[in-house]
Amino acid sequence: MTPDALNRLVAQLAKLPGIGEKTAQRLAFHVLRAPAEYARGLSAALLDVVDHVSLCPKCFSLCDKAHPQCGFCSDTRRDDKLLCVVEGIADELALERTREFKGRYHVLHGVLSPLEGVGPDQLRIRELLTRLQDTDVEEVILATNPDVEGEATALYLTRLLKPMGIKVTRLAQGIPMGGDLEFADQATLARALSARRDI
Amino acid sequence: MTPDALNRLVAQLAKLPGIGEKTAQRLAFHVLRAPAEYARGLSAALLDVVDHVSLCPKCFSLCDKAHPQCGFCSDTRRDDKLLCVVEGIADELALERTREFKGRYHVLHGVLSPLEGVGPDQLRIRELLTRLQDTDVEEVILATNPDVEGEATALYLTRLLKPMGIKVTRLAQGIPMGGDLEFADQATLARALSARRDI
Repeated sequence: MTPDALNRLVAQLAKLPGIGEKTAQRLAFHVLRAPAEYARGLSAALLDVVDHVSLCPKCFSLCDKAHPQCGFCSDTRRDDKLLCVVEGIADELALERTREFKGRYHVLHGVLSPLEGVGPDQLRIRELLTRLQDTDVEEVILATNPDVEGEATALYLTRLLKPMGIKVTRLAQGIPMGGDLEFADQATLARALSARRDI
Repeated sequence: MTPDALNRLVAQLAKLPGIGEKTAQRLAFHVLRAPAEYARGLSAALLDVVDHVSLCPKCFSLCDKAHPQCGFCSDTRRDDKLLCVVEGIADELALERTREFKGRYHVLHGVLSPLEGVGPDQLRIRELLTRLQDTDVEEVILATNPDVEGEATALYLTRLLKPMGIKVTRLAQGIPMGGDLEFADQATLARALSARRDI
């Protein structure tokens, strides 16, 4: 009973992650209620993003197609000796928000996951090795998530990078800032204990 | 550090209701990862919806601009004697999903809410009265939500419609099907008690 155009929009919105049929309908109603300029703006932004954004050929961050490199790679103030390997763009941006890291990035675009059929060839690992052969990177920080797949990926990369004479590090694991010992899970608390530091 | 096109898409997505900055970013990444056809399809669907969907001039449901009336109004199998007044399109679709109602609809597009500056003139009330003057509607079901604004709107409409000699009804209120007496709120339970039925 609803117009076809609305049904098509609901179907398209429902393909977004975490958006079910009902939420998609609510969003579509919002688009209809809002001034037409909003729908036109969002429509143009969607086209823009696929037409103008690609992956940086060096670090595989997001990059404007008009530029040969992404903002991270072209920034001359960043430290070429330090390379941080992350699973995805969101992780890269999270690290960037800390304003603590001034090295370069390399985005794997996934983690090793035999169950989901993701092997080393599906990730940007070969490109990482090629990149490390002709640069002066002294330390690689493996900033994959501290879960099963992330740990396995870090271990795999460690075995590849160590023989190249590169220092390999991993983000510290422990109790989060503002966290509560009482509510920390056993694995985190055990890790925090074994990795305790002199003060 | 992210491409401008991506930032613009995130900003547009974050204007949707219930979508914050982080969710908008996650959705934008999904759009980038998906085949370009998805972004193009969603973009086209957005334009389609503003170009092809309008409100039915009779009942103010959603309507294809190419048709003079919406699907509800043009369906000759529906009962002209029964008119259901709802707050919004979502309520209309919820009632329709029950497959129990075969009359016509009238969408108010809001409820009376003095605090938010919504008076009778902001709703489709005048159009409802005009519509009722030259039809053979015998019963109007006031299906506004059973909250303060919805009740006030129903009361306001009742006072307008009763003098026209039209039977005015309200959706039954009580314990929801599958509900639990123990967890029902006091107001619902009191209403269920006072509106008890012979079996």
